[in-house]
Amino acid sequence: MRNLLLTISFDGSAYHGWQVQENAVTVQQTLQDAWEKVCRSRDNVIGCSRTDAGVHANMYCCNFRTENEISCDKLIHALNANLPDDIAVSDCREVPYEFHARYDCKSKEYIYKIWNKPEKNPFLYKYSLHYKYPLDEKFLDSQAKQFIGKYDYSAFCAAGSSVEDMVRNVTDAEVTRDGDIVIFRVRADGFLYNMVRIMTGTLIEISAGKIMPDTIKEIIVSVDRSRAGATARPEGLFLNKIFY
Amino acid sequence: MRNLLLTISFDGSAYHGWQVQENAVTVQQTLQDAWEKVCRSRDNVIGCSRTDAGVHANMYCCNFRTENEISCDKLIHALNANLPDDIAVSDCREVPYEFHARYDCKSKEYIYKIWNKPEKNPFLYKYSLHYKYPLDEKFLDSQAKQFIGKYDYSAFCAAGSSVEDMVRNVTDAEVTRDGDIVIFRVRADGFLYNMVRIMTGTLIEISAGKIMPDTIKEIIVSVDRSRAGATARPEGLFLNKIFY
Repeated sequence: MRNLLLTISFDGSAYHGWQVQENAVTVQQTLQDAWEKVCRSRDNVIGCSRTDAGVHANMYCCNFRTENEISCDKLIHALNANLPDDIAVSDCREVPYEFHARYDCKSKEYIYKIWNKPEKNPFLYKYSLHYKYPLDEKFLDSQAKQFIGKYDYSAFCAAGSSVEDMVRNVTDAEVTRDGDIVIFRVRADGFLYNMVRIMTGTLIEISAGKIMPDTIKEIIVSVDRSRAGATARPEGLFLNKIFY
Repeated sequence: MRNLLLTISFDGSAYHGWQVQENAVTVQQTLQDAWEKVCRSRDNVIGCSRTDAGVHANMYCCNFRTENEISCDKLIHALNANLPDDIAVSDCREVPYEFHARYDCKSKEYIYKIWNKPEKNPFLYKYSLHYKYPLDEKFLDSQAKQFIGKYDYSAFCAAGSSVEDMVRNVTDAEVTRDGDIVIFRVRADGFLYNMVRIMTGTLIEISAGKIMPDTIKEIIVSVDRSRAGATARPEGLFLNKIFY
């Protein structure tokens, strides 16, 4: 039996996230359907992460354990032909049988895009948060840097999470600007439920003066969700890189 | 009575083009509906151009003749609030009563985007043509330059056009590359039905070896639609600038 690691990307606009659920179209379901058409077998797929409805992926990894013997190149081609336009397979390779897309993931990088202009952008409303007031990316970068470190991130986790260990090691965080788009990029060994969206909301509220500057460490150690900012909308969030 | 010139942009994916038609959602209809809500009057709007279903506009101009006295700044704000996210109003200004968005247009610029990589791009399928084989943008630029001049462009007009005068003056044409995106940009005093999409299809067929290089002038003077390339799909086309 082979174990195949697939790298895909997707526009999450039309999907209720990665994970299969009843009465909703998900990326996992759509990929499994294409796989079944191509391989004529219903093999189980393991994703590197759950993603929320509307969240996108520039890079997402998952593995299939399969008896199927179609070559990796042919699988890429056939899956792409059987997937809708908003999901693309870019790589397929054989990995050891024990490899697990979620458990073996060393770290992940997310980016969050903010369209930072008073005017609407009709091409970016599904791919960004629209924030009309000026954002100072250098100031926000200095604030984002305060996320770096190994902490209990409970204050940045949505209610309803079933995870017990809330400690995450954030190794990189930055805010940059590309024209009218402000980008928050963050890398960690793992993320809690809605963590990046709450981090983004907190940065925006610091910019707006609703949260005091230089208080991110305080908010973290408070382990108090109510002290962090609101959860930013999912459309601006992209899973950007997966590290094994 | 005031005459107001509006500048808008739109993602054409969800629309059957600009022009009002029965049983189809169009940009004009959607804009007129928002106008009626804001101004409580059903004023006629004149667009600078018809656009096909799926075609986008980075810039589109239209004028309303209206008894309404709401200030331009308030109109921009109120229209944006009442328009869907895929249509944005960026400017509104008073113009002389005689001004006509279509007749007074001196020239227009279109761009056509081609995603030029073997892999699909799940974020660009509604905003580009996917062409898998390598395109040489310098060679294609030298071919595109052959469109420049004042000619009867019948060979680059879709059948069914009711226009009588097929002469158009193309003043600028170029092909450039931005990473994996190849962009064809063309400016003229006016365009025939499907003209830019047929020009793009012709450039692609030259690249593919289906049409001989350096034959664009010949194809133009043949006034024979069958000698030009196929009509490229609408999704890659953007009305980019309007000059008055």
